[in-house]
Amino acid sequence: MSIPHTMLASVLTGPKTIELREVEVPVPQPGQVLVLVTAVGVCGSDTHFYQTGAIGDIVVRGPIVLGHETGGQIVAVGHGVDPGRVGSRVAVEPQTPCRRCDYCKRGAYHLCRDVQFYGAWPVDGSFSEYAIVDDDFAHAIPDAMTDEQAALVEPVSVAVHAARRGGVALGSRVLVTGAGPIGVLCAQVARASGATEIIISDPVAHRREFALAHGADVALDPATADLDVYAEHFDVYIDASGNGPAILSALPTIRPGGTAVLVGMGGLQLEIPIAMIQHREITLTGTFRYVNTWPAAIELIVSGAIDATSLVTGRYGLEDVEEALLKSTTDPVSIKTMIIPPLTAAARG
Amino acid sequence: MSIPHTMLASVLTGPKTIELREVEVPVPQPGQVLVLVTAVGVCGSDTHFYQTGAIGDIVVRGPIVLGHETGGQIVAVGHGVDPGRVGSRVAVEPQTPCRRCDYCKRGAYHLCRDVQFYGAWPVDGSFSEYAIVDDDFAHAIPDAMTDEQAALVEPVSVAVHAARRGGVALGSRVLVTGAGPIGVLCAQVARASGATEIIISDPVAHRREFALAHGADVALDPATADLDVYAEHFDVYIDASGNGPAILSALPTIRPGGTAVLVGMGGLQLEIPIAMIQHREITLTGTFRYVNTWPAAIELIVSGAIDATSLVTGRYGLEDVEEALLKSTTDPVSIKTMIIPPLTAAARG
Amino acid sequence: MSIPHTMLASVLTGPKTIELREVEVPVPQPGQVLVLVTAVGVCGSDTHFYQTGAIGDIVVRGPIVLGHETGGQIVAVGHGVDPGRVGSRVAVEPQTPCRRCDYCKRGAYHLCRDVQFYGAWPVDGSFSEYAIVDDDFAHAIPDAMTDEQAALVEPVSVAVHAARRGGVALGSRVLVTGAGPIGVLCAQVARASGATEIIISDPVAHRREFALAHGADVALDPATADLDVYAEHFDVYIDASGNGPAILSALPTIRPGGTAVLVGMGGLQLEIPIAMIQHREITLTGTFRYVNTWPAAIELIVSGAIDATSLVTGRYGLEDVEEALLKSTTDPVSIKTMIIPPLTAAARG
Amino acid sequence: MSIPHTMLASVLTGPKTIELREVEVPVPQPGQVLVLVTAVGVCGSDTHFYQTGAIGDIVVRGPIVLGHETGGQIVAVGHGVDPGRVGSRVAVEPQTPCRRCDYCKRGAYHLCRDVQFYGAWPVDGSFSEYAIVDDDFAHAIPDAMTDEQAALVEPVSVAVHAARRGGVALGSRVLVTGAGPIGVLCAQVARASGATEIIISDPVAHRREFALAHGADVALDPATADLDVYAEHFDVYIDASGNGPAILSALPTIRPGGTAVLVGMGGLQLEIPIAMIQHREITLTGTFRYVNTWPAAIELIVSGAIDATSLVTGRYGLEDVEEALLKSTTDPVSIKTMIIPPLTAAARG
Repeated sequence: MSIPHTMLASVLTGPKTIELREVEVPVPQPGQVLVLVTAVGVCGSDTHFYQTGAIGDIVVRGPIVLGHETGGQIVAVGHGVDPGRVGSRVAVEPQTPCRRCDYCKRGAYHLCRDVQFYGAWPVDGSFSEYAIVDDDFAHAIPDAMTDEQAALVEPVSVAVHAARRGGVALGSRVLVTGAGPIGVLCAQVARASGATEIIISDPVAHRREFALAHGADVALDPATADLDVYAEHFDVYIDASGNGPAILSALPTIRPGGTAVLVGMGGLQLEIPIAMIQHREITLTGTFRYVNTWPAAIELIVSGAIDATSLVTGRYGLEDVEEALLKSTTDPVSIKTMIIPPLTAAARG
Repeated sequence: MSIPHTMLASVLTGPKTIELREVEVPVPQPGQVLVLVTAVGVCGSDTHFYQTGAIGDIVVRGPIVLGHETGGQIVAVGHGVDPGRVGSRVAVEPQTPCRRCDYCKRGAYHLCRDVQFYGAWPVDGSFSEYAIVDDDFAHAIPDAMTDEQAALVEPVSVAVHAARRGGVALGSRVLVTGAGPIGVLCAQVARASGATEIIISDPVAHRREFALAHGADVALDPATADLDVYAEHFDVYIDASGNGPAILSALPTIRPGGTAVLVGMGGLQLEIPIAMIQHREITLTGTFRYVNTWPAAIELIVSGAIDATSLVTGRYGLEDVEEALLKSTTDPVSIKTMIIPPLTAAARG
Repeated sequence: MSIPHTMLASVLTGPKTIELREVEVPVPQPGQVLVLVTAVGVCGSDTHFYQTGAIGDIVVRGPIVLGHETGGQIVAVGHGVDPGRVGSRVAVEPQTPCRRCDYCKRGAYHLCRDVQFYGAWPVDGSFSEYAIVDDDFAHAIPDAMTDEQAALVEPVSVAVHAARRGGVALGSRVLVTGAGPIGVLCAQVARASGATEIIISDPVAHRREFALAHGADVALDPATADLDVYAEHFDVYIDASGNGPAILSALPTIRPGGTAVLVGMGGLQLEIPIAMIQHREITLTGTFRYVNTWPAAIELIVSGAIDATSLVTGRYGLEDVEEALLKSTTDPVSIKTMIIPPLTAAARG
Repeated sequence: MSIPHTMLASVLTGPKTIELREVEVPVPQPGQVLVLVTAVGVCGSDTHFYQTGAIGDIVVRGPIVLGHETGGQIVAVGHGVDPGRVGSRVAVEPQTPCRRCDYCKRGAYHLCRDVQFYGAWPVDGSFSEYAIVDDDFAHAIPDAMTDEQAALVEPVSVAVHAARRGGVALGSRVLVTGAGPIGVLCAQVARASGATEIIISDPVAHRREFALAHGADVALDPATADLDVYAEHFDVYIDASGNGPAILSALPTIRPGGTAVLVGMGGLQLEIPIAMIQHREITLTGTFRYVNTWPAAIELIVSGAIDATSLVTGRYGLEDVEEALLKSTTDPVSIKTMIIPPLTAAARG
């Protein structure tokens, strides 16, 4: 496959401004691979960057390509990478750690202070025809996996990391607040980890319905549900909403010795019932992306333990990224939107 | 329900000698409950005791009632037990620890030096119409659970304990040697714990077929399989065969940092490749029964994550325990045999 | 030793009202022992109950004997207890769990919903000549251990539990806020656990000096110290102050992936920087008393790894409990106050 | 400091043949540093390579520089390394992993299949004036640390890794077999990890005496000691002898649920009492070098928790490596031998 010199990329040039530009195809440096992008999921953080230009203290200071849920195919390799990898279909883990600090060497490379992350300024993401990633973060996938599934390994990874940090295990009772894509995947991954009671809560009816059909045993409407019946009930609580009141109403449902894992990004501060945390020896923590999740997430999807494909409710071309970003927040029934770059579509056509 | 003064019990009076005797119905002491036995599974250890009068250093020194995989219904309670429990259907955890030693207080009551175990001389088991157990070891089961499933919580518990000790987790690759009931359940529990590749090995063809249909991805015949292709491949290896050569051929398939859990009882000694254990930092351990497994095992069965019922290949009355013990070893297609005591059958009739 | 029918007990009859009463010597029930009290430490919770009649939601609703840091000697045993224990010197673990619930069986008996605790209404403590405790919670101590050390096993246990929950390990960097007895012992136990950098913070100069001399490498004055130099520095942070601002100023000093353990009881709520907890994957938890700490704490004191005796700054008789309670809060140089009951003193006489 | 073109290196050219050669000073490649060697310890594996040309399946197939316990000073850096590191005194971790495989990314880089190790053919070690190592494996040391202590971080690391894998914790009872340098350091590190009873066993009297003076509570002579009195006594057992009979006699002293860590390299096979491993749920494992130990080991030495310097019983120049290798095995009172290269000695004047 010959690689062109330029490619189309969907560039965020300012708040609420996306331009489709023709840019140079990047050249893989030593240890890197060039990936032809075949599918990219739209994440809530993409829409947040698009709407506001920032997430917390990560601020976009110049033009950037968003997109970090990436499936593709290796089309070129940098020095030191096995040329036999060209042609391999891959799921891209969108981070590059320093590999040398204590975090990297202790198995916590996601906490590396120098980690670079796709689509987080100034590192370009993959709403483009090609993207660059370190060789070992382009994880090979089997033929049985679709391009969209390859892209969905990223949100599944978020859920895998949450389940691990929560210690979900055989027989766990799990509460998830927020039935967006991450919440639903957290429910599914909890099941795959051995949880036998999984309750999800979301104020939106169609999300509850979707969650019930795709992993949750019970879907509660927080407006009407009485969480008191679950007092000290759950082994693990995972927030996938970022909603402060939701978190606060959920904490009393954690059993003594249980764990709360905050995945959703919300406010900077939260008034925590600290005496309850102490009396019940609850463990409260959060997740920052993921670490060492791709191999397991790929296997979980391929084995059918996780049904990620059902999440996809819309597909757009690279020229329609802005519309995709808008629809993914405004469309009430949207769960997960996919971008399918044109080259790929053309190649398939 | 009025409780008679006597009941039928199937008593092992000597090697290969079982008598159906009329004995007194035991009276629950403080903290105990009396359980009407509704189903009892036959375990390999029962047949071993029957055949040889001993397992390792546990020797039968007098008449004893075997049977320790017990489903039933509480019909009377001792002092200090909530009378409201009468009528509750239960799965019996067949052990009574001292509750006061370090092991008991550290969550390892199965290692308590004074733990008493059903059907291990001198403690009677449950091949009888009624049996006694401590209140909190008679675990309540939901209506949706059958009597046989209640009895099968015991072998499922063996597998749950093995999976926990092996650290089976999301994406684990697991090898199980031995496709008897415990091996098959280990495969199923591994799956429920997140394992995505589960290979089982057994020399008997119909066991391999059964395992393939009930939890394993691949079933190997050790006579013809080339385990070398799995060198350093598995995260967790569980032996459910007790067969020394099987264990030795499996050890090289464990990846560096992986774990071997020996569940099956076999010889006293084994010539272990100790340098390999060191170079690969393999963790080798075994399981002794189970601890804190009943709640999770019950939930796993009720939720459908574990299909234990399919294991049952034969059912016998209390008068036919000896035949059941014989058949469960000699019948080539026998997987798990159940004893259904007469009172229960009559009550159902 | 003959046991009298009555004994002196220091009874809290209302807020700020202590009476020395003659009460019946309790009779050990089955599984219990009667302990001649030889030394009792005064805890901050004792003074808090004395001052306000409550700690959080634990309210004193009737006359009660405070005191739960107890050394003594077994003088009588209840049914089922080895009579050979009479005469044994013991350190009393002042709690009695149900031994039957999931918490008790999983090694978390301190979280048992029915656990009874000494000196927490309605269970009498040990500001008295004799006290009752379950056999296995009267931990034998070696001859080399003094009575006061036996009493000090309790606060050492608080620190042991904190170090365990914080995961203090070889090479850990530890910050402790609050240099009262618990803070100083947390520093010492952190050292004994392998910590190699231990910094303590307290606004009171003489407490800092004491901490420096007894376990801390550095003692900071929060009024003048610049904690920014320790940004993302500590592996483990232990609060022993219960002071909200102290906790909030300490959280940014925890390294990504580190742990905060809140030991000191303070307010019910705290405005936590939740986004920071998430971004740094900090684990925030608290401790509720202790579990399975006595054996280790005894050994640590006997081996000299922990110097608890130096904490004792005052000794009072049973008739002077009220003065002891007052002095332990008002005396600026008081660290740990001991009550030595009269019988013991007389016997020593 | 100007760097010469050639240096002296002590080269193993065949079994029992060492030559002092003038060789080129290596040039640091990108990411590497050049270290002026100031002290190198002689390890048992060095003497084993010298005597036999192999250790297990690691065979010396050409001339090689042994030596992997290295203290030094950075004198030049490769591309990408902060030039400010020149002049830094360092303790060298003598391994280079691939940094990209699952092991490297999961915090187990020592199990990396492509890890390169100093002084293990074909990678040269540091019995030479200069040595090369990756930047981040040249761990900075404080001024307070001596050159010899820097070299001794390596054997301390072996002990740190063993203590971690054994789970030595507050109050642990630990048995160590073998009172050579590693055994004595295992005893010391166990103490630093919270162990309160540490018993060591060795057939050589002066080793027992040394161990007693440097970390052990009791030193047993296996020829006369009755290990039966310690049946099921120890939480953690560490073998530092590689002696099969020593290991087999120690296993019954491990308490149920305890751990055996085999550090010493011995035979390929060992007849293990497998039924005992199962009944007692003992965890048996080994160690392969170390991972993420340098920072903690450095701190432990600097803080005084570990006294490594006392181990040094002999010092030799680079020209006397062969004599040092011989003496370290034949001299009955030798514990740890140091090589001090001439440049360093010269520089010191």
